[in-house]
Amino acid sequence: MVKKNEGKHIPQRVVSRLAMYYRVLSQLDQGGVERISSRELGEMMGITPSQIRQDLSYFGEFGQQGYGYKVSYLQQEISKILGLEKQHTMILIGVGNLGRAIASYTNFRNRGFDLVGAFDIRDEVIGKKLGELEIKPMSELRSLLKENRVDIGVITVPATQAQQVADILVEEGIKGIWNFAPLKLEVPAGVIVEHVHISDSLFALSFRLREIWE
Amino acid sequence: MVKKNEGKHIPQRVVSRLAMYYRVLSQLDQGGVERISSRELGEMMGITPSQIRQDLSYFGEFGQQGYGYKVSYLQQEISKILGLEKQHTMILIGVGNLGRAIASYTNFRNRGFDLVGAFDIRDEVIGKKLGELEIKPMSELRSLLKENRVDIGVITVPATQAQQVADILVEEGIKGIWNFAPLKLEVPAGVIVEHVHISDSLFALSFRLREIWE
Repeated sequence: MVKKNEGKHIPQRVVSRLAMYYRVLSQLDQGGVERISSRELGEMMGITPSQIRQDLSYFGEFGQQGYGYKVSYLQQEISKILGLEKQHTMILIGVGNLGRAIASYTNFRNRGFDLVGAFDIRDEVIGKKLGELEIKPMSELRSLLKENRVDIGVITVPATQAQQVADILVEEGIKGIWNFAPLKLEVPAGVIVEHVHISDSLFALSFRLREIWE
Repeated sequence: MVKKNEGKHIPQRVVSRLAMYYRVLSQLDQGGVERISSRELGEMMGITPSQIRQDLSYFGEFGQQGYGYKVSYLQQEISKILGLEKQHTMILIGVGNLGRAIASYTNFRNRGFDLVGAFDIRDEVIGKKLGELEIKPMSELRSLLKENRVDIGVITVPATQAQQVADILVEEGIKGIWNFAPLKLEVPAGVIVEHVHISDSLFALSFRLREIWE
């Protein structure tokens, strides 16, 4: 049973782990696993069982003593908690290699994230197709945002242009930014930025390799 | 002063945070910040000061009571801990949009990660250029690995082909895999896989947006 979290602020690390739970539970469910203990789930994720119970206790009671968690049920409940039952509209700004890679990642569409616009400043790209969308010039960004409700702006422009793009998105009322530019964006309170730090995992890999070699 | 960590196993979440410390300290250093308290650093990263002190205590003493941390010094020490002072060679398997995006991300090269080969199975890509590299057919992957020391294999092929690619890399002695395919790879003990879960941050963004809306 999911309880409303009654205005309690959920720490960022708990939110990040919720997305991890969802991913791991989806894999288990696809693999035909029906139930799992918090100990097993913890081992898969590299965290303690008590951490899992504590994280989930923000949202309700999901397991049963001596039984563990029902995988498909817990996955669905976390899906609701994450808001994945809702449709989200997204626009993409910057249709380079990374932008194209993200747009073609069908996993998002399957989860209800729908790309409704793609923008670039480069003449050689404008007017071309990105899937079923026509790539539009940046000059049309504001008018699209005034006429349509867009939940999330995906920023895949170079770091030098990312803040400028974020400013436009914020001015036109976008509340969610998914930022791939290697730059910390300044946004007012009430706007959420999730930054994808691709190199963090490479540096973690470097550390683990050093452990092997020494 | 960095002490050898004397064979202690460092938990994965500490390793992940080390990469975060490195990133945040690099930003502070570039911004001209000379020193920072563990409280301030904690606020920037959304973790507690005691967590920071505990993480760093695996590796030595870096701060001074009442002074905090010297930013450039701590950044350099964490760079050494992460093994970023070493050169790493990488090959890329799968030169689609994502592969091209990663190859063009100059940040890695600046940190000593050197791309020495790029492979694909598609005839229309083989023989073309990726930066200064010529894209090679998969049939040449094993011979390159037999003749050269390669530290890291970057997997950017579709999920259906990722395990097969990983098997070849492991058989030819690669110890580090940076995996972008949305699939959990099976590898023997002693091989390190870092998986980039791009959608986790999108789902976390979805959660935060739901908090705003309700």
